[in-house]
Amino acid sequence: MNIEKKRSPISPKVIERLTQYLRHLENLSPEDFISSKELEIRTGFTATQIRKDLSYFGEFGTKGKGYSIRNLYNNIEKILGIQKTNNIIIIGIRRLGGALVEESEFTKESFNIIGIFDNSKSKIGTEIKGIRIRDIKEIPFFFQSKDRIDIAILTVPKKAAQQITTLLIKAGVKSILNFAPINLDIPNNIAVQNIDLYAKLQELNYWKEHRI
Amino acid sequence: MNIEKKRSPISPKVIERLTQYLRHLENLSPEDFISSKELEIRTGFTATQIRKDLSYFGEFGTKGKGYSIRNLYNNIEKILGIQKTNNIIIIGIRRLGGALVEESEFTKESFNIIGIFDNSKSKIGTEIKGIRIRDIKEIPFFFQSKDRIDIAILTVPKKAAQQITTLLIKAGVKSILNFAPINLDIPNNIAVQNIDLYAKLQELNYWKEHRI
Repeated sequence: MNIEKKRSPISPKVIERLTQYLRHLENLSPEDFISSKELEIRTGFTATQIRKDLSYFGEFGTKGKGYSIRNLYNNIEKILGIQKTNNIIIIGIRRLGGALVEESEFTKESFNIIGIFDNSKSKIGTEIKGIRIRDIKEIPFFFQSKDRIDIAILTVPKKAAQQITTLLIKAGVKSILNFAPINLDIPNNIAVQNIDLYAKLQELNYWKEHRI
Repeated sequence: MNIEKKRSPISPKVIERLTQYLRHLENLSPEDFISSKELEIRTGFTATQIRKDLSYFGEFGTKGKGYSIRNLYNNIEKILGIQKTNNIIIIGIRRLGGALVEESEFTKESFNIIGIFDNSKSKIGTEIKGIRIRDIKEIPFFFQSKDRIDIAILTVPKKAAQQITTLLIKAGVKSILNFAPINLDIPNNIAVQNIDLYAKLQELNYWKEHRI
């Protein structure tokens, strides 16, 4: 499996903001139009920023009317590649991994869990939401037998994270959502996003006593 | 309860980077010294950026030697207020909330869970890790009876999030870690951090096909 990658002129911050625009748009009526100024009020990002971010990808607005909410929503979905279903696997099915499987608000229809892996003897062979939990050792074979795995979600303990990441990359994984509180050592053709809950608590702990 | 807040000249990005410096430092020997150049190599942030971030808070380096890892670590902990234990409550004890209670990697010794709340009749009165699950309706009374609640972690479904947030703020909560995929409407004296798992998956989905 070799996903073709183009070097992007787009900064990660642009993509992060696109996901936030989407989150605001989804609560609005698709029939309506919205101006960048109205989007500024809703999202907190400036109208100039919003127009600039969107201009990287095309001309989505209509002069004098603004953006069709339906069109803008659909276009951002296409940019992010979530207008279609993407295949994900979850490695580590302790409670956090279980939460991701069972709480559909986190994956929605854009992401389809096609594999769950753990190393606990008592869990392997059991099922969550109809998906059988497999041994982590099976990952390489699983990859050979599947068409496409888009994202691996890593919810294993910190001490196991690097070893499993190396195994995932060898097996062909190209992108990883990492919940382990560790900086993974990975080649730069692999996409990684870290979600560090402990770091977020630390940030919030600072801000509870300091105003922005 | 009225936490005194000073308007901070510090940008949220500075605080976010501090948590990342900490994450790198914790794997190094506290006896050693480290230069900002070495920190650049480890963290990916420039030495200039690192020096500037730290200079907001004091003079932590020693000329010609760099930073004492132990001192720098302890100082960043103090800046973030995590050298001491902070009290948190969790609202919504479906699987994600349960994961936060049971997987100590997410809270460590800096954060102590003193209350768990849910609205499910079958859960109220039961215990997780020795902590009794209480009815969400009890939150206002719980606040009156406790010295200090630093952070409320919200892991309720999207549709319930705003209503519970309003209740939390009325009860006296000053900072919220929100996992519900919704933009909470909150007064600007309340600190909020959102962790949007679905948005992170969307970002990663973009980057799996585009190189940074």
